[in-house]
Amino acid sequence: MAEVAHMIDTEVFLVFSTYATIVILKMMLMGPFISYLRLTKKVFANLEDTNLVKTTEDRRKWVRVQMLNGCHQNDLENIIPFVVIGLLYALTGPDLSTALLHFRVFVGSRFIHMVAYLVALPQPSRGLAWIVGLFTTFSMAYRVITTALFL
Amino acid sequence: MAEVAHMIDTEVFLVFSTYATIVILKMMLMGPFISYLRLTKKVFANLEDTNLVKTTEDRRKWVRVQMLNGCHQNDLENIIPFVVIGLLYALTGPDLSTALLHFRVFVGSRFIHMVAYLVALPQPSRGLAWIVGLFTTFSMAYRVITTALFL
Amino acid sequence: MAEVAHMIDTEVFLVFSTYATIVILKMMLMGPFISYLRLTKKVFANLEDTNLVKTTEDRRKWVRVQMLNGCHQNDLENIIPFVVIGLLYALTGPDLSTALLHFRVFVGSRFIHMVAYLVALPQPSRGLAWIVGLFTTFSMAYRVITTALFL
Repeated sequence: MAEVAHMIDTEVFLVFSTYATIVILKMMLMGPFISYLRLTKKVFANLEDTNLVKTTEDRRKWVRVQMLNGCHQNDLENIIPFVVIGLLYALTGPDLSTALLHFRVFVGSRFIHMVAYLVALPQPSRGLAWIVGLFTTFSMAYRVITTALFL
Repeated sequence: MAEVAHMIDTEVFLVFSTYATIVILKMMLMGPFISYLRLTKKVFANLEDTNLVKTTEDRRKWVRVQMLNGCHQNDLENIIPFVVIGLLYALTGPDLSTALLHFRVFVGSRFIHMVAYLVALPQPSRGLAWIVGLFTTFSMAYRVITTALFL
Repeated sequence: MAEVAHMIDTEVFLVFSTYATIVILKMMLMGPFISYLRLTKKVFANLEDTNLVKTTEDRRKWVRVQMLNGCHQNDLENIIPFVVIGLLYALTGPDLSTALLHFRVFVGSRFIHMVAYLVALPQPSRGLAWIVGLFTTFSMAYRVITTALFL
């Protein structure tokens, strides 16, 4: 028991736990939010499934929900690797300041990415946020591989 | 090596390992099961891709497979956060009885959710199972955040 | 801090970290690769969304991108369970050689699976690679359940 208590007291691990929980909660809340939009605005996953789509207004709403789905899918594809690699990274014992920098930049980039999706910012912003998150994960993966290489 | 051996001997961690493995196996087995249904019943992912869909019977089968897909997607969106947050939660050193309660309620809610999908129970049951699972994860996330907060 | 340092020095855990990082990076890189193909080859996710699909050539390209999507989805469904169960497995303290065998077979099977998708090898090869990966995960799950059973 003592070991586990010690482990969770490592500052880097505390930092990882905090940011991983935040970013996972953000990902989880996207699902219900999309379902809510679908139910209240009567927008469906497949345009073909419904006869309700007749006006341009309906088409615009549908495009909007498709974008939310894209945002959610992008979250799954980026946040899961972050959580796995971030956990291994936290166990390699990096400097607290370096770890903080990595986690903050990643979580920040995901929130900017979400905002860029929701308010439909002009394109470079969304792509940029995604690239920044990708490189943060690569940087952590590089440290894991160089510290723990054992094929 | 000693530390790892000790860690896996922590009862809360043993409980977490057991339930996480059960729920991940359940999620994994959905994939092959859907593929099997598709092959044997000749139901395809996209209604538009096939010319086989002519009768109402075919349409009904297609709706059924779509529901299985929805169930699988819902599993991915709920079980992955549970595994990540549950791991961090197990490391915060909660009471064994509280942890057992959380894990049992979550795993139970996912199985009820699956059954509600498969035998098409009337709606409140499925939504309720999903909400219970969601709140269990939130409750664990709350403990992780309050124990480990380090932004 | 000492405990964490020790933990990452366990050889089995080092091996797990290396293979988990490799397989997660492979999964991550599929996403951008598919996006790149879509942008450069003007192939879209939904055939119905575009008026550009007129020739058989376009149809062939679309089928190809659909296959890549299938490969990515299959990765998500198999690699995430591997990472979770593999982590728990590494903590049960297995023999180094047994663990190495499991991780190498799994990672190898995923790469063969990807190659079988990309160069469109005749069917048994892809299905076989998938089955091998599945059984490797089951074998690790069996050890976790038998070592850590606490319901």
